[in-house]
Amino acid sequence: MTYCLSIRVDQGLVFASDSRTNAGVDQVSTFSKMHTFEIPGERAVCLLTAGNLATTQAVVRQIRRDNEAGTGRCMNTVADMAEAAEYVGELSRAEQRKHASRQREKFNPEASFIVGGQIAGRPHQIYLVYPEGNYIAASVQTPYLQTGELKYGKPILDRVVSEGLSLDVGARAALVSMDSTMRSNATVGPPIELLLYTADSLRFGKRLVLQEDNAYLRELRTAWQEGLKQAFTNLPSLPLSRPAVKLVGPRGDS
Amino acid sequence: MTYCLSIRVDQGLVFASDSRTNAGVDQVSTFSKMHTFEIPGERAVCLLTAGNLATTQAVVRQIRRDNEAGTGRCMNTVADMAEAAEYVGELSRAEQRKHASRQREKFNPEASFIVGGQIAGRPHQIYLVYPEGNYIAASVQTPYLQTGELKYGKPILDRVVSEGLSLDVGARAALVSMDSTMRSNATVGPPIELLLYTADSLRFGKRLVLQEDNAYLRELRTAWQEGLKQAFTNLPSLPLSRPAVKLVGPRGDS
Repeated sequence: MTYCLSIRVDQGLVFASDSRTNAGVDQVSTFSKMHTFEIPGERAVCLLTAGNLATTQAVVRQIRRDNEAGTGRCMNTVADMAEAAEYVGELSRAEQRKHASRQREKFNPEASFIVGGQIAGRPHQIYLVYPEGNYIAASVQTPYLQTGELKYGKPILDRVVSEGLSLDVGARAALVSMDSTMRSNATVGPPIELLLYTADSLRFGKRLVLQEDNAYLRELRTAWQEGLKQAFTNLPSLPLSRPAVKLVGPRGDS
Repeated sequence: MTYCLSIRVDQGLVFASDSRTNAGVDQVSTFSKMHTFEIPGERAVCLLTAGNLATTQAVVRQIRRDNEAGTGRCMNTVADMAEAAEYVGELSRAEQRKHASRQREKFNPEASFIVGGQIAGRPHQIYLVYPEGNYIAASVQTPYLQTGELKYGKPILDRVVSEGLSLDVGARAALVSMDSTMRSNATVGPPIELLLYTADSLRFGKRLVLQEDNAYLRELRTAWQEGLKQAFTNLPSLPLSRPAVKLVGPRGDS
């Protein structure tokens, strides 16, 4: 399993991914799921991958090959992030088709991707590319995209993330969402990779690679746990004596 | 879909359930999934139901019939909560077997249950009964049980719930977990039913039925959202300039 997410705020983009891959519980490995393609000052594109590792590695290899060939459509020539998503979707479908005839009962070559970044003169944006090759963009209402094991980490994003958030707070939201997911699903695992993109910079900054025992991650967990406890302490008490709440007897009769 | 959960703390038990049932997106109804069986001063048992509504209703009817018949094993005679779980599992399997021969592709008669409470002289406890009829108890490490759409609401329980929690704070944790789930999955819906059991009381208190626009639920949501924002504000900033964190370039080279 995998958990990848990306958040789009006015200030830029946050990309985060776990690094665990597994084919059965006794075949667990560590692979980076975060890949970047950039021409500093002209374009910066980040690709997060989920699903069949052979498919996602083949797609990444093909993108690098196309860039090196320098002819036809490639990540260095796509005009905007929508075209980048279209391109990734086509490569993914082509790769999956190669294995369609070899399908066995438990074999699944499907993969999904988050592709985001910015190309000079265009807005920064993120897209989710489905296994079928179609894709959706983040919106004002939902300025984040997830793929893989997304449920555990979603409520915190729903409650906190909006486009006006600073890039730094967005990154902390991504880390809390990722850490909650790792804690709940053993097949989502460290290190967490985190990459920030500042709007209109057209180049990526440093990438953070946080191992499970990383000092900052431990600080973050402790502070978050304390913050949640504080938030619970401040919640209003149950209205057991308030008349405004409908109360019924144990059998449902009022 | 459904979301039911129960929390066991030293002070007692919390039971919470949503009330939405659906057979396809255009066939949505409201049914209570919380059923209580009690002989005040002797036993108090609460049953939360998830899965096929025909199966769960049949199980509840059979429990009431067995209690009225007053012969053989019934909820009024089980010696402890483990036997109550065994009994519910047997009724559920018997009901599912009735429909086994009628199976069509999309038909699924499976159901799961949370059964909890206390019988005089025994500890208060909660059990999760699987569709196969087997069951597990809550533990010191994991003092809560969930069934149905459980992922969205799990991280908050993992971070906050322990056996030393007060019953009131446990109830607030259950409501936040339930509200987060309703927000993320449209097939989990109001009203939320909430029932508290105080250890050794051997009787249930009043049951809260909270509609979506309930004043307390709105207060709770606002306070929770504010508390989370505060928790985020207090998180340590990203260690982009700290030497202790491993930093690598965008291509993975250090």
